[in-house]
Amino acid sequence: METYKIKFEPLGLSGRCRADESLLACAHSAGIGIISLCGGKGNCQSCRIQLVEGTASPPTASELKAYSRQEIKEGWRLACQTYPTSDGKVGLPPTSLTTTQRVQTEGKEVGVAPEPVVLAYQVKLATPSLTDAQADADRLLQALNRQHRLSCDSIDIGALSQLSPQLRSWGWQLRASVREKEVIAFGPWPSRQLGLAVDLGTSKISGYLVDLDSGRTLAVKGVSNPQISYGEDIISRIAYATQSAAKATQLQRLVVRALNKLAGDLCAEAKAKVGDIVDAVLVGNTAMHHLLAGLPVKQLALAPFVPAISQAIDIKASRLGLKFAPGAYLHLLPNIAAFVGADHTAVLLATLNGANRETTLAIDIGTNTEVSLIDKDKITTTSCASGPAFEGWHIKDGMRAASGAIERLRIVDNKVEYQTIDNAPAIGICGSGILDAMAQLYLAGVLGEGGQMNEKHRRVRRGDKYLEFVLVGEKERKDVHRAIVITQQDVREIQLAKAAIRTGIQALLEANAYEEEKIKKVIIAGAFGTYIDVASAIAIGMLPALPLERFQQVGNAAGTGARLALISRTKRAAAQKIVSGINYIELASVPGFNKTFMQASYLGRFRLKEGKRKGI
Amino acid sequence: METYKIKFEPLGLSGRCRADESLLACAHSAGIGIISLCGGKGNCQSCRIQLVEGTASPPTASELKAYSRQEIKEGWRLACQTYPTSDGKVGLPPTSLTTTQRVQTEGKEVGVAPEPVVLAYQVKLATPSLTDAQADADRLLQALNRQHRLSCDSIDIGALSQLSPQLRSWGWQLRASVREKEVIAFGPWPSRQLGLAVDLGTSKISGYLVDLDSGRTLAVKGVSNPQISYGEDIISRIAYATQSAAKATQLQRLVVRALNKLAGDLCAEAKAKVGDIVDAVLVGNTAMHHLLAGLPVKQLALAPFVPAISQAIDIKASRLGLKFAPGAYLHLLPNIAAFVGADHTAVLLATLNGANRETTLAIDIGTNTEVSLIDKDKITTTSCASGPAFEGWHIKDGMRAASGAIERLRIVDNKVEYQTIDNAPAIGICGSGILDAMAQLYLAGVLGEGGQMNEKHRRVRRGDKYLEFVLVGEKERKDVHRAIVITQQDVREIQLAKAAIRTGIQALLEANAYEEEKIKKVIIAGAFGTYIDVASAIAIGMLPALPLERFQQVGNAAGTGARLALISRTKRAAAQKIVSGINYIELASVPGFNKTFMQASYLGRFRLKEGKRKGI
Repeated sequence: METYKIKFEPLGLSGRCRADESLLACAHSAGIGIISLCGGKGNCQSCRIQLVEGTASPPTASELKAYSRQEIKEGWRLACQTYPTSDGKVGLPPTSLTTTQRVQTEGKEVGVAPEPVVLAYQVKLATPSLTDAQADADRLLQALNRQHRLSCDSIDIGALSQLSPQLRSWGWQLRASVREKEVIAFGPWPSRQLGLAVDLGTSKISGYLVDLDSGRTLAVKGVSNPQISYGEDIISRIAYATQSAAKATQLQRLVVRALNKLAGDLCAEAKAKVGDIVDAVLVGNTAMHHLLAGLPVKQLALAPFVPAISQAIDIKASRLGLKFAPGAYLHLLPNIAAFVGADHTAVLLATLNGANRETTLAIDIGTNTEVSLIDKDKITTTSCASGPAFEGWHIKDGMRAASGAIERLRIVDNKVEYQTIDNAPAIGICGSGILDAMAQLYLAGVLGEGGQMNEKHRRVRRGDKYLEFVLVGEKERKDVHRAIVITQQDVREIQLAKAAIRTGIQALLEANAYEEEKIKKVIIAGAFGTYIDVASAIAIGMLPALPLERFQQVGNAAGTGARLALISRTKRAAAQKIVSGINYIELASVPGFNKTFMQASYLGRFRLKEGKRKGI
Repeated sequence: METYKIKFEPLGLSGRCRADESLLACAHSAGIGIISLCGGKGNCQSCRIQLVEGTASPPTASELKAYSRQEIKEGWRLACQTYPTSDGKVGLPPTSLTTTQRVQTEGKEVGVAPEPVVLAYQVKLATPSLTDAQADADRLLQALNRQHRLSCDSIDIGALSQLSPQLRSWGWQLRASVREKEVIAFGPWPSRQLGLAVDLGTSKISGYLVDLDSGRTLAVKGVSNPQISYGEDIISRIAYATQSAAKATQLQRLVVRALNKLAGDLCAEAKAKVGDIVDAVLVGNTAMHHLLAGLPVKQLALAPFVPAISQAIDIKASRLGLKFAPGAYLHLLPNIAAFVGADHTAVLLATLNGANRETTLAIDIGTNTEVSLIDKDKITTTSCASGPAFEGWHIKDGMRAASGAIERLRIVDNKVEYQTIDNAPAIGICGSGILDAMAQLYLAGVLGEGGQMNEKHRRVRRGDKYLEFVLVGEKERKDVHRAIVITQQDVREIQLAKAAIRTGIQALLEANAYEEEKIKKVIIAGAFGTYIDVASAIAIGMLPALPLERFQQVGNAAGTGARLALISRTKRAAAQKIVSGINYIELASVPGFNKTFMQASYLGRFRLKEGKRKGI
């Protein structure tokens, strides 16, 4: 039978597709995780793709239902309904990809001209003799300044400590890496200069190794934050660090070790040396930032919630025990408030990259959720304690986004269709799945507006303590004989989480006296936000009910912002300017907070000014 | 009987003197170590003093012989011949003091206006609230800059790590210590700022604790350099460090630990805290400098003898493990060459302090001897390997300047009169004693011009291997029954040492085409140089035969220079300028070096151009 070569972008993977095989089947054979909730029946519309090049079978009725005429013209298809008739190229939107593969697409370039803070210069020196016994460093600085018209006046002591033998082994020619007026590292000539961008999250650390001269990302890797053993969320981490200086130092060292390991792994992947990392930018929430920098965190958690520092800081990486180039600095982007850290600054930097000046809501959902409303140069920011429910904590069968977690779900005719990470047998449910479950249960009438569960529904039963909706029955899980359920208590947890987020959004709208319709773009950043079905989030009233095309799920925007600041000194300066202009709103001090929060906890569209609803 | 109160300066000690008691006896009763070789007979002229206030018995014949009429008028006396007739004040020249007490006089003020690099500012802050939750550091920097019209832009991360709790315990008011645009330390307001000046010698470390705001020296202390266990001189220390990076680090850590201990001891004496040391200046020879800074030393000892760095460097003290104020810097003055270090720069800085512009020879005698010839703005410098003989090494009965060492000596009528350190029973002979012995033996005809010992002298005998001159006979040392001698081999060692020094001096004169008479002042710096009898050094031809009043024995001028650079930013800049202008001469490459050296090894006045002398 005829086979065709299909290229899948942006993954850059190819597969061979038989004429009697759908693009979905072809993708799965090629190891590409396209979501398919209905199992290829054309019902769930989760396998959306775009046929960019090549020809295929004509659109089916399911596809004509799923897409507008314009979209059909642009090549939008459902992968399970499409049979290729030639070689072709397929575009995969991130929302159609399963977790594992969506992460792979995050490494894409940030698209600014490289303008690094550390610059590389070639220097050639005269060989010393008995009549010209000038010191090595003095000789180097003179030659560097003369050959490149610079005014460098110092050499990092760590770099200097290796210079004398290096000069002699490199034949009196080398690469000097210069930061402002300081020489911070040396390498043979020619050799490349690397940069490391890090998003230090409470639970996850993402690292990006970048070629500073080209701006290209060479490797991307995510690892767990090892501090998690000493407190799952920010507040418990702060409590631990506050117990003693030794414990704070312990948390600091754990992260430093993890960062050294991460840098080593990234360099190994890129066939580079950590000693060539001459610059680094790190972002994180204020507590992570402070713990890494060795700053006190006690005052973060006590009213009036004051950071030790907001403005950007540069620390010699060696001073923290980071093993990069000897004189490399770690640049920490500015924090915004005690609970809005440099990671949100980075999100804003990434969001404002380019000529984007529509009224934009930028939201980074996590245990703590940061929200900013951007209107031209005016930025209003708040933070809300959304809690760890979306990370699976305090949810009966909740789990992190790992293999076997239900990440997408829908209820059709009382049957639950779901997709798990890695297509592994279901073992629990992660944040995006929980969100889908809430929306589906609400839309199916299993949950009322107030969140109360309809005990008459055939999949609802009474569990140990609460009513529970059975997602996966005992019989379906032959190995463990335990059902996967959503309990009434789980629903309450999610209501609290989504109410906190919605209250934050409302506070920003009210501070600017805007209706939600005024928001032209919603940027959803962060791991969790990338994987959610926006329609579900709208259905339960967590996000404003705006047209879906206004939403962008941008993945790790904090990491992107960190890379921008790493590659470009202009972007680094822009970050400081963004923060200086922010109007920060402390949610607890907003008038009417409690009323808004109460209303926001209802499922369905947010309506602040209506009368009493049915009890929550 | 009548008693008088006598004050001894610069020690600031007082004693009561009976009318029948000489000032020498009075000083000894008061615990003041005035040298007296002849035991108070008026013969040795070693107990020279100046009666500054008060009256006394008329000058004796011995005194009229010892002093000119003018000197008698100025109150110059021999302490052993002078009986007070009223209360009075006595000036003690350093040369009349024994070792132990001479050191005490070194702490005197350096006499420049304080102009420290680190400045203290009082800052008062508004208390934060829920509506003013600005970060602590940002709040501080804004207030500091506004209240004092500064443009500080960063806070040392170590200082920052303590700021938040400090602000809260000090009531939102503090002292900010500012260096250039960086805040490096905080203290309660008011509180003083301290500085530490260090002369890091191969065998001894001298520390000076200074009040930075007044410029006053609060405490002075000398300790041994603990690296001495890993090599007594520079070359063996370099050899050890070159064996492995771990060994170099070991040497570095030893000194860092000693410096921390020294700083702690000085602060304890001054009732201060090491955390208030906000600035430090360190000088040392190039090898000590490099080992402390973690710089490679291998290339120092290999032709063409190149330092890793000459120019001044500022290193965060914390980076070396020095426990001063969190953000304090250690300033290392510039080196001159591989064997002329920042300690000699400091000597030059101290020498050139004030309006001193006569043609001056500055000489710092040690295992390595540095010599500079200064003529207005022109400085010519060299270094000579004088070896450790003057420190007692390779001398049969040689020892360091410690209790019981013969430090002054003369030979009268075949009898040896000597003075020991602390007046303890003689156990050996230290550098200044050896130098006296050489001169006295030469003048008494026991040694010929070539250094050969006259075996017919009644105190000369044949020892195990060599002829030896008996300084202290077995019978005089009842406890050990061992004589203290100067051997023919000892004489050879000293000849080599003094020849090296004299060759260096000659090389500088020749480079400038000067006769020695052109030298108007000779500054003799360093521990050994302070204690020698200049007349002895002239007698054996080690120093030029110039009038004695042209010589100044200035003690630890390197320490004084370090303090100057610590107290005054102008002096710090001057040090760099001095070094930039120096014409350094590598002795080994000077034409005629061997011939000069040979001639310089003869005892007696140096005569280069004469014919053959008697064999050495």
